Amino acid sequence: MSTDPRAGEAAAYVEPQILEELVSMRASIDNIDATLVYLLAERFKATQRVGVLKAKHRLPAADPAREKKQIERLKRLADDAQLDPEFAEKFLNFIIEEVIRHHQAISASAGATTEDTAAHSSADTSEAGSAYDAAETENR
Amino acid sequence: MSTDPRAGEAAAYVEPQILEELVSMRASIDNIDATLVYLLAERFKATQRVGVLKAKHRLPAADPAREKKQIERLKRLADDAQLDPEFAEKFLNFIIEEVIRHHQAISASAGATTEDTAAHSSADTSEAGSAYDAAETENR
Repeated sequence: MSTDPRAGEAAAYVEPQILEELVSMRASIDNIDATLVYLLAERFKATQRVGVLKAKHRLPAADPAREKKQIERLKRLADDAQLDPEFAEKFLNFIIEEVIRHHQAISASAGATTEDTAAHSSADTSEAGSAYDAAETENR
Repeated sequence: MSTDPRAGEAAAYVEPQILEELVSMRASIDNIDATLVYLLAERFKATQRVGVLKAKHRLPAADPAREKKQIERLKRLADDAQLDPEFAEKFLNFIIEEVIRHHQAISASAGATTEDTAAHSSADTSEAGSAYDAAETENR
């Protein structure tokens, strides 16, 4: 019997060569998942950089035209990859939701430190606020 | 002014070199998104293969011990990647939810074709049913 922890509960049910096949397939799924995690981390870093650039140059945080094009493109790519195009759109919306959640958390913690920023001009405070907005909404 | 469609609405607001920087960053985000789509398609293909193997050898569809280990591992990887570990868990759950949705759609369409399968023995029908279950729940 295989001792690979990826065999999990299946180890009790099947013959060794089937288990080996299952373990090998699960190892591929695990590799894909690791790649997804590192890639998602990189995506959030990229959107964070765009957010900083937008805040620095006082650009609007949201860009509906860009978002529309991104969704259309992802659906085309999904179709080519034999992935449900509706899922691709749902996936992009899932990431955007996560970003909004981050944004709300940052806004809440910014509100908790109002006294620290009271010494600055209102323009400075506003800029800091829009930096958060831009950094957290350019994920589309 | 850049004519790259990735400039989007920002084209109306900033000087060309800033716009160029934004367009370059967005091109990176688009490349990451394409990779994510193709990788997700590959992940669904892998879990589909595992599902078929499980159905063929009458293995249980769900494996809570495996799922628990996957979540722990993804959280560790997320931490290493400087990605919110809670997000990594949410991400895995998002994929599982999608799989359940597929499963329900397949079950519904299987129900609609009951007359086609009525000629087969009940054991065959049961096996086909569990094949769907296994194929659609091994995503953890």
